[in-house]
Amino acid sequence: MVRIKEVKFNKQGLVPVVTQDITGEVLMLAYADEEAVRLTMETGKAHYFSRSRQKIWRKGETSGNEQEVQEVLIDCDQDTILYRVKQKGPACHTGNRTCFYRTLKRDSSTQRASE
Amino acid sequence: MVRIKEVKFNKQGLVPVVTQDITGEVLMLAYADEEAVRLTMETGKAHYFSRSRQKIWRKGETSGNEQEVQEVLIDCDQDTILYRVKQKGPACHTGNRTCFYRTLKRDSSTQRASE
Repeated sequence: MVRIKEVKFNKQGLVPVVTQDITGEVLMLAYADEEAVRLTMETGKAHYFSRSRQKIWRKGETSGNEQEVQEVLIDCDQDTILYRVKQKGPACHTGNRTCFYRTLKRDSSTQRASE
Repeated sequence: MVRIKEVKFNKQGLVPVVTQDITGEVLMLAYADEEAVRLTMETGKAHYFSRSRQKIWRKGETSGNEQEVQEVLIDCDQDTILYRVKQKGPACHTGNRTCFYRTLKRDSSTQRASE
């Protein structure tokens, strides 16, 4: 068992959070500061820290697509968190259930001169 | 479908990689540079970039606990990768199957004067 105090936040005070649905599906990766982690554990709803807006957000606060948090796990070196959630609606702003809805392909081996 | 060229690597040239076993279990979070992603796709074995050692490593190169990559996915904003793998042996250096083997707990509400 690890306590919030023991989490290794980076220089920006953030930790990456992997979010997984209870079905097993990996939904998204986002970041949280200490307050967002506390709010998640206190309210049972997933909170994150937006690096672009520099503020805490609750997933679903505008879309309604909330995440009910079942479990909060921490990795071996205490610098990554895993939220296990019940996802309401799609997790992705594109409307896809998960943000990982596309496969990555190797580039063509042909080099283009313009690049 | 997204090509490696379109991946948004950060200022350090890295992208976070979530690694999930084909059983659904989230195993670890690590980082990859462009070369590590290419090597992963070319060899079918998971490669990462070690931020502490500043070099590419192949998972299992010393432990033997390799990851056979089945699929490489990319998220909606193209700045996080998901490796879907067949994990050989434990993924975690602690000997646990996954690095996420502990739950995170709220700190005690009692404030200690020394802190």
